[in-house]
Amino acid sequence: MNGINKPLTKRGQKTFDALINSAITLFHTKGYHQTTIAEIASEASVSVGTFYIYFTDKYSLYNHVLKELGHKIRAHTTKAILQSKTRREAERAGIKAFIKYIRDYPHVYTVIWQALQVDKTLFINYYTDFAARYTKGLNEAFKKGEVLETNFQTLSYALMGISNFVGLQVTMLEPNLKSDETIDHLVDNLFDTLEKGLFVKER
Amino acid sequence: MNGINKPLTKRGQKTFDALINSAITLFHTKGYHQTTIAEIASEASVSVGTFYIYFTDKYSLYNHVLKELGHKIRAHTTKAILQSKTRREAERAGIKAFIKYIRDYPHVYTVIWQALQVDKTLFINYYTDFAARYTKGLNEAFKKGEVLETNFQTLSYALMGISNFVGLQVTMLEPNLKSDETIDHLVDNLFDTLEKGLFVKER
Repeated sequence: MNGINKPLTKRGQKTFDALINSAITLFHTKGYHQTTIAEIASEASVSVGTFYIYFTDKYSLYNHVLKELGHKIRAHTTKAILQSKTRREAERAGIKAFIKYIRDYPHVYTVIWQALQVDKTLFINYYTDFAARYTKGLNEAFKKGEVLETNFQTLSYALMGISNFVGLQVTMLEPNLKSDETIDHLVDNLFDTLEKGLFVKER
Repeated sequence: MNGINKPLTKRGQKTFDALINSAITLFHTKGYHQTTIAEIASEASVSVGTFYIYFTDKYSLYNHVLKELGHKIRAHTTKAILQSKTRREAERAGIKAFIKYIRDYPHVYTVIWQALQVDKTLFINYYTDFAARYTKGLNEAFKKGEVLETNFQTLSYALMGISNFVGLQVTMLEPNLKSDETIDHLVDNLFDTLEKGLFVKER
C-alpha cells in the first residue's frame, strides 16, 4: 500500500526502522533530491536490494516518513494534554509539548518543509490534515463553552503558526532558549498575553 | 560584495533582474540544488558568461534573492501600514498586506524555506532579522501604550507564525480563500478573537 511493504518479523521491523532513520538523517542533512537510495541503504548498513523489499522507491519512503512524523507529533502532544481540564490548559500543554518535541527532533522542519520541493500535494495533505484535527478540537471546546465563537479553521492555522514559529525561535533561531523551563515560561507568558487580549483596549 | 557585482547601466540592470527572476522561478519549481547556472542563464536568455559578470556563483545569487525578498516584503507591508493610527490597526493592515503579497508571489515560501537545505545560516539570518524589526516595532508601540507588556520577541515570532500559517491557509492549503475580501475578513475575524482574549474567561 502506497509503495510500502510493512515488515512481518521483528528482524524485518528493525531493518525497516533503520532505513527510515537513515533516510530522515539524510533528508535532513542533504535534502531529498540530493539523497540516493544507495546512500539510504548504506547508512542503514543494508543492501540496496533490501531497500526494495520494503519500499517501491524513494518517494514512497518519504511519503511514509511524513505520515509517521505527523502521527508521532500528534501522539506526543495528545499525551501531553491528557491531564488538561480545559482547552485553555490543553492549548498551553500541547504547544509546550510540540516545541519540546521539535527541540529534540530538529529534523522535523527540514523534512516536512522540503515537501514543497518533493511534491506540494504531500505538503498540502500534511497541513490540511493537521488543521482539520485542530479545528475539530477547537469546535468541541466551543461546544463546551471554553472558546469564544470565531472561524475555528483560521484560528487553527494561527495556533499552528504560533507553535511552529515559537518552535523555530526556541530550537533554531535564538540561542539559549532550549531548556524545559524556558520553553514553559515563554509559552505561558505568550498565552497570558493572548488571553488578556492582544492590545491595550482603545480609548 | 557578497559575490554580487551590481549592474551600472540600465541594460545591465535588465539582465541582472532577468537572471534573478529566472533563478526564483527555477528555485521555486525545481529547487536550489536541482538548478544549474546554465539553466538560470538559459531561462534568462543570456550566456553563462553573462551570469558570471554579476554573480560569483549560485549561492551568491540565492543569498541576494533572499535579501531582496525580505526587502520587498517589508516595503510592501510598511507601505500598507502607513495610514494606521495605532498598532492594533497596523497589525491587521500589515498581516493582510503580507498575505496578499504571498498570494501574488507564491514562490516566497519555497524560496525562503529551502534555505534550510542550502545553508541554515541564511535561514536563521532571514528570520532573526525579521523578528528583530518586528520586536522593535512592538516595543515602540508598548512605549506609546498600545500593547500590553510581554516578551515582545516571542510575541513577534507568534505574530510571524500567524501571518505565515494563515498565509499558507489562504494561498496554498484551502481553496477559494484568495480574494482580497476573504483575506480581509479572515484576518479581521481572527484579530477580533485575539483582541478579546483567546479563551472564555475561566469561572
